[in-house]
Amino acid sequence: MFDKILRISLLYDFYGQLLTEKQQEIIQLYYSHDLSLGEISEQLGVSRQAVYDTIKRTEKILFEYEEKLGLVQKFAATNERVEKIVKIVEEIEKNKHLIKSKPDYVIEEMAKIKKIANEILEK
Amino acid sequence: MFDKILRISLLYDFYGQLLTEKQQEIIQLYYSHDLSLGEISEQLGVSRQAVYDTIKRTEKILFEYEEKLGLVQKFAATNERVEKIVKIVEEIEKNKHLIKSKPDYVIEEMAKIKKIANEILEK
Repeated sequence: MFDKILRISLLYDFYGQLLTEKQQEIIQLYYSHDLSLGEISEQLGVSRQAVYDTIKRTEKILFEYEEKLGLVQKFAATNERVEKIVKIVEEIEKNKHLIKSKPDYVIEEMAKIKKIANEILEK
Repeated sequence: MFDKILRISLLYDFYGQLLTEKQQEIIQLYYSHDLSLGEISEQLGVSRQAVYDTIKRTEKILFEYEEKLGLVQKFAATNERVEKIVKIVEEIEKNKHLIKSKPDYVIEEMAKIKKIANEILEK
């Protein structure tokens, strides 16, 4: 369930603005404000079933946007690569004593960073 | 004009899959294959005016997607930051002789890379 909430939240961050106001409202109440179907139904004065249907339909729309555009996936791939760069940098910081004795170590790590960066830039 | 072509191409790369097949076809013929309105009109058997209207309408749709989602802008900002990281790395590679004598120089540059990386990760 946690995974699904996270996934819908991410999709919503990217594509939420393409939804209608009503869809946005219901998705936010359900996923961000953590209200139950009954609570949303009461708050908006619509049936519980209507709330449920809107959530299901809206989730489907969000998944379809990602299927077509794949931008959440693209961002996630970029972020993973940037995390790798951070790890290399932190490793160098930890191995400060090596910098002086093994300058080639730094040069090798720089090549790694450049390779990852160029993957992000699709070069 | 070049700027506009580039901009539409980028928008098309991101949001093209949200267009209808006909819109995609005409935008590709006009912007990627560099055909004139007359040539597209002839090839598709529709009036020159219809081709023109479709291009204008489709451009507007692409701009509206970007206005709502801002993902081209977000990607461009990330890429600019990654380019900055590459520049720092290349500077270190160029100053290889400094690594041994000034290890602190490397550590300072690592901090810069980490800062930029964390901006990308929005940390």
